[in-house]
Amino acid sequence: MGSSQDEAKRIVGQRVASWIENGMVLGLGTGSTAARAIEALGARIASGEITNVCGVATSFAAEQLARRYGIRLTSLDEVSEIDLAFDGADEVDPAMDLIKGRGAAQTREKIVESQARRFVVLVDESKLVDNLGSRMPLPVEVVPMSVRPVMDAIRSLGAVPEIRMGQKKDGPVVSDQGLWIVDATFQEPFDSAHVNNVLLHTPGVLDHGLFLGLATDLLVGRADGNVTHQTR
Amino acid sequence: MGSSQDEAKRIVGQRVASWIENGMVLGLGTGSTAARAIEALGARIASGEITNVCGVATSFAAEQLARRYGIRLTSLDEVSEIDLAFDGADEVDPAMDLIKGRGAAQTREKIVESQARRFVVLVDESKLVDNLGSRMPLPVEVVPMSVRPVMDAIRSLGAVPEIRMGQKKDGPVVSDQGLWIVDATFQEPFDSAHVNNVLLHTPGVLDHGLFLGLATDLLVGRADGNVTHQTR
Repeated sequence: MGSSQDEAKRIVGQRVASWIENGMVLGLGTGSTAARAIEALGARIASGEITNVCGVATSFAAEQLARRYGIRLTSLDEVSEIDLAFDGADEVDPAMDLIKGRGAAQTREKIVESQARRFVVLVDESKLVDNLGSRMPLPVEVVPMSVRPVMDAIRSLGAVPEIRMGQKKDGPVVSDQGLWIVDATFQEPFDSAHVNNVLLHTPGVLDHGLFLGLATDLLVGRADGNVTHQTR
Repeated sequence: MGSSQDEAKRIVGQRVASWIENGMVLGLGTGSTAARAIEALGARIASGEITNVCGVATSFAAEQLARRYGIRLTSLDEVSEIDLAFDGADEVDPAMDLIKGRGAAQTREKIVESQARRFVVLVDESKLVDNLGSRMPLPVEVVPMSVRPVMDAIRSLGAVPEIRMGQKKDGPVVSDQGLWIVDATFQEPFDSAHVNNVLLHTPGVLDHGLFLGLATDLLVGRADGNVTHQTR
């Protein structure tokens, strides 16, 4: 990752942190870009600029960062709605639909972000694609015993399935839900609504990394140091 | 459970066992009625009448019974299709759509039974209903952190949600996938295709107990000792 990409993450993180107001309930994303936003928010809290925000974490990593930066943690049991959620994405298309899940956190992210009135996606330019799946596989979270039938379903959608294997852990990656991740690599553009529907109706699939119609705002950190803001 | 209900379970179990042929790959259901079928199959194996059958178990209980009765266990990784699956149901409507999941085994059951060329449902008359949900709640298996939003989604479908609490275990029942069960009680007939679709598209839902279009055969044990057979 180049330093301009680091800088892009930092500036989009700062931008979304500048939108946060006293008393907001936040959805705290996972990954390096969301981490920059949590840090920037932490700086505003430390300076006394804002108070009384709380957040629902999408992962253990987000939880740890929230603790470090003084953001009170809450849960979806305690709040009926999230004012603003922010998170990175692995791919964003022109309709602001996303692929997420390189870090296998997509299921908790979708649970939290689907509850947000405003869901802000934070990326650098390298994440913008014309068609979802052109650079990243689509992660699908599955019950281990269903992996063969799910892989067949993925093949029938025109993609090549591969069980995600662990590093620093023998055998498959195990998600926070205790399930496995199958990465589906598409060779050409696909109908994302159809893929969404087929995967969700395949027994043994918990969820997958397509986020359709969920993002309300997109912040893109540009190489020239500017941020562009797109809304749905 | 009356003795006529016991007898009904026994006779439908014997009937489906009589359909099993040498070399078949079976899907082994969970619950007291499926257990009668496994026992009857075990008797045919013990007598030497059939050989070389194997089965994919839908639960630990089915696995234990298969071991006891000499049915070789296999998995969906080793077989590309199941010749015949059999299982009980909590409710069956005239279209042979089902509610399952009183024993919280519905997700593994659906994974296995959706792979079967022939899926035989075994019930006594008490399980026949005009409309699904008239006697039993619909079990929905959920990621614990999503339980509040999923309960909201269930309410929006017109049902009353309740987290299933354990017995001999404090707090919620935990499924074989490590998830929770929310039982959805409907007050009136519902559109099962719509409910299926909404639940599967709700983030945090793994699966639920509606089995739509999966059963190919229904065996009903009658109070008079007869079995009726309906096919799709």
